[in-house]
Amino acid sequence: MRITSKSKDPDKWYTDVILAAGLADYSPVRGMMVIRPYGFAMWETIQRIVDEGIKKRGVKNAYFPLFIPASFLQKEKEHVEGFSPHLAVVTHGGGKKLGEPLAVRPTSETIMYDSYSKWIQSWRDLPLLLNQWGNVVRWELRTTLFLRTTEFLWNEGHTAHATEKEADDFAREILKMYADELIRPELAMDFYEGKKTKFEKFAGADMTYTMEALMSDKKALQLGTSHNLGQNFSKAFKISFLDKDGTQKFVWQTSWAVTTRLIGALVLAHGDDKGLVLPPRIAPVQVVIVPIWKSNSEKKNTLALSEHIARALTKKNVRVELDARDGYSPGWKFNEWEVKGVPLRLEIGPSEVRGKKVTLAYRDTLKKETVSKAQFEKNAVKILDKIQKRLYENHKDFTRKNTHQVNNWKEFTEILETKSGFLEGFLCDNAKCEKAVSGKTKATPRVRPFSSEEEKGKCLMCGSLEGKKTLFAKAY
Amino acid sequence: MRITSKSKDPDKWYTDVILAAGLADYSPVRGMMVIRPYGFAMWETIQRIVDEGIKKRGVKNAYFPLFIPASFLQKEKEHVEGFSPHLAVVTHGGGKKLGEPLAVRPTSETIMYDSYSKWIQSWRDLPLLLNQWGNVVRWELRTTLFLRTTEFLWNEGHTAHATEKEADDFAREILKMYADELIRPELAMDFYEGKKTKFEKFAGADMTYTMEALMSDKKALQLGTSHNLGQNFSKAFKISFLDKDGTQKFVWQTSWAVTTRLIGALVLAHGDDKGLVLPPRIAPVQVVIVPIWKSNSEKKNTLALSEHIARALTKKNVRVELDARDGYSPGWKFNEWEVKGVPLRLEIGPSEVRGKKVTLAYRDTLKKETVSKAQFEKNAVKILDKIQKRLYENHKDFTRKNTHQVNNWKEFTEILETKSGFLEGFLCDNAKCEKAVSGKTKATPRVRPFSSEEEKGKCLMCGSLEGKKTLFAKAY
Repeated sequence: MRITSKSKDPDKWYTDVILAAGLADYSPVRGMMVIRPYGFAMWETIQRIVDEGIKKRGVKNAYFPLFIPASFLQKEKEHVEGFSPHLAVVTHGGGKKLGEPLAVRPTSETIMYDSYSKWIQSWRDLPLLLNQWGNVVRWELRTTLFLRTTEFLWNEGHTAHATEKEADDFAREILKMYADELIRPELAMDFYEGKKTKFEKFAGADMTYTMEALMSDKKALQLGTSHNLGQNFSKAFKISFLDKDGTQKFVWQTSWAVTTRLIGALVLAHGDDKGLVLPPRIAPVQVVIVPIWKSNSEKKNTLALSEHIARALTKKNVRVELDARDGYSPGWKFNEWEVKGVPLRLEIGPSEVRGKKVTLAYRDTLKKETVSKAQFEKNAVKILDKIQKRLYENHKDFTRKNTHQVNNWKEFTEILETKSGFLEGFLCDNAKCEKAVSGKTKATPRVRPFSSEEEKGKCLMCGSLEGKKTLFAKAY
Repeated sequence: MRITSKSKDPDKWYTDVILAAGLADYSPVRGMMVIRPYGFAMWETIQRIVDEGIKKRGVKNAYFPLFIPASFLQKEKEHVEGFSPHLAVVTHGGGKKLGEPLAVRPTSETIMYDSYSKWIQSWRDLPLLLNQWGNVVRWELRTTLFLRTTEFLWNEGHTAHATEKEADDFAREILKMYADELIRPELAMDFYEGKKTKFEKFAGADMTYTMEALMSDKKALQLGTSHNLGQNFSKAFKISFLDKDGTQKFVWQTSWAVTTRLIGALVLAHGDDKGLVLPPRIAPVQVVIVPIWKSNSEKKNTLALSEHIARALTKKNVRVELDARDGYSPGWKFNEWEVKGVPLRLEIGPSEVRGKKVTLAYRDTLKKETVSKAQFEKNAVKILDKIQKRLYENHKDFTRKNTHQVNNWKEFTEILETKSGFLEGFLCDNAKCEKAVSGKTKATPRVRPFSSEEEKGKCLMCGSLEGKKTLFAKAY
């Protein structure tokens, strides 16, 4: 399958890469995708890291129903406004019409908090720290593989705390866990961390914390969010507790998630015209060995050396695949593994056998070098670490280079038109000003970085001096 | 919460134990349950074991859509008859009526095999060995926590092979994996392995292999199944391949699953009037330490010894919990952990501190003994292994003692009435004979054991000599 050039048609390139690399496939159900084993293996790694991270912080996994009575979603005003246009609704069960229609969960606040109101009675029951791994459904008009699908997989964490501060600290802590344990070290992506504006926050939250990354087409992508829900849901669902001081209080809550969208982010952030480029830590196959032979004796020798190296790498916990398939040329194999983004390819032909050498082909730089077998085996893990670091540094450079200061509306529109990327300027909290940005341009406020939380400046729209440092971008 | 006596009302006892132990809770959606962290932790262990087992055998995980176009389910005749009465149907999405209603998957054969027909073209694409972890929905009139819920969690494996023998071998191999790696060693349950009869097999299968266990109320429970699907689905979904010999052939398929029902099986197989009794290998908490104090100095000393032992156990990878909560009496704590079925409780009071001893309370036998701290720390893992083995042996004895030979229909009905349990007799393949059993009694043929596959005898119903050894029981 030919992959469209990224510069020619980035959208077509994106889906070409996903289909050609075998990450996912279309399904007969509109807007829903099939996640194929190569893509799912990455999701399993993401799950493992997040699961370890949350368990270290005292969170336990549980499971709540897929269906939510329609009346439950009505209980929190902003929440129902945000989600009701996107519901899939079950009206029949077991051949009969249901008394009350059931929504397929678009998110589980309402069904979970109904249980929380039963389980939480006393300060002894707090904090309640639960997470659920599962699928959710949001009916979307336009869908894109991984980035926006009618069904997607995610983790959704939901916690309840005795105090506002404890809840806010926890929401921030989880965002930091996503950032420091998953996105930067494993997915090799840079991004801005901070707060959402009023109209960009989660429907039902007091505050949404977010990670926003720049994709290689200079559009922003939200990588994950953590919400401080305040008491909005606890009041709606009557989740209250008898505190140590003898008074009845509503709990303070958080919710947070990352989704299968992260696999789409990996494609967009690192991919090139040849296909995927995977950071070693998330790559299902980190090293592929392609033996090259013409005669039977060459086959025997190159296979023997290949197998020897494969065993040595496996011992070092490197995920290695030996591609010894008959009937495919080395060139065909090179191409296949390049499309799949395997970080490092070893080419082992007769000259490598003779010289006890290996030829390394780096997926990210597309460069090759030949080194001694002994030296390679010794340094294999280091080499992979170096690739991992290089991908992160490249993405960081790219993000910083494509972040532009804008001091006024004229600069904003000019730079958005000519350069795109992140535009960094000041925006006040006036609803009109926020609405005006998305009304007049294709950009929206993406994030107000934690790093400049205290800074104030002149609002791009109204000129008030109460503007807060805000990053804008066109977004997925 | 008081637990109803098992002998008095086994159904009430069962739900009392589940609710009191915090395994699960009812939800506001009819027939759907909430799996609480203590129950979900056991599901996570089951998932880990099955996931390792299937990956060792070359199976990879993938993910297919939750919704299935109604027309897909029609394609295999037996399959649609089996499942259409139990469908939940989505008729509206995004506020609009859908052109074609979508079923929420009751099982994924049809949606997966649509993809298989695209992916499989050549013998090189075989075998295709995929598994999916997920939720399914089957509308049920009567539901029971874990055993029969409208939504449940499971693994569903789906494979495609070039030959009939390879498919059949694989279906048997997976059943053996469930049996030898999960059910016997981890869940400490005994059961009969073998084949289902014509009317008990999976809707769409040529043959269903099953594991059938006896619960403590002498009713049988199906623990898991593996199906040889023959070419029924490959013909319906046109999954064919060009074989090495140049001819186009339909693939041979299998599917197999275990579900969250296994947690219900654990309750039923091992539980007693005090609550759960968990085999150590599946227990989220294997050892609970309860320090006992009256004065502050006693508190200090018993806590110090408790913490010391907890650390020693953690080092040996024992899952230990130190219950040092204030405001609860030791007796209250003993009861709580007994309800939760923790295999071993350590009681550490002033006399244990003085004598450098620990008092062990075994959940399964309800016996106590006091041993030296040093001796306990040395033998902790062995003690847990011994409990594990004892639970398995007890369940095995129970199963064998409650399996009764029946030589004719009179014996069948008498023993079913007086003793219940498994009735072992011969049944021929005549549809009338099988139908007659369930028509005249509350028992059904559960399994034809592998161990007596070759035996023939006089059919209980018609007297033909073509009867096959069959185990019958009342079943969940």
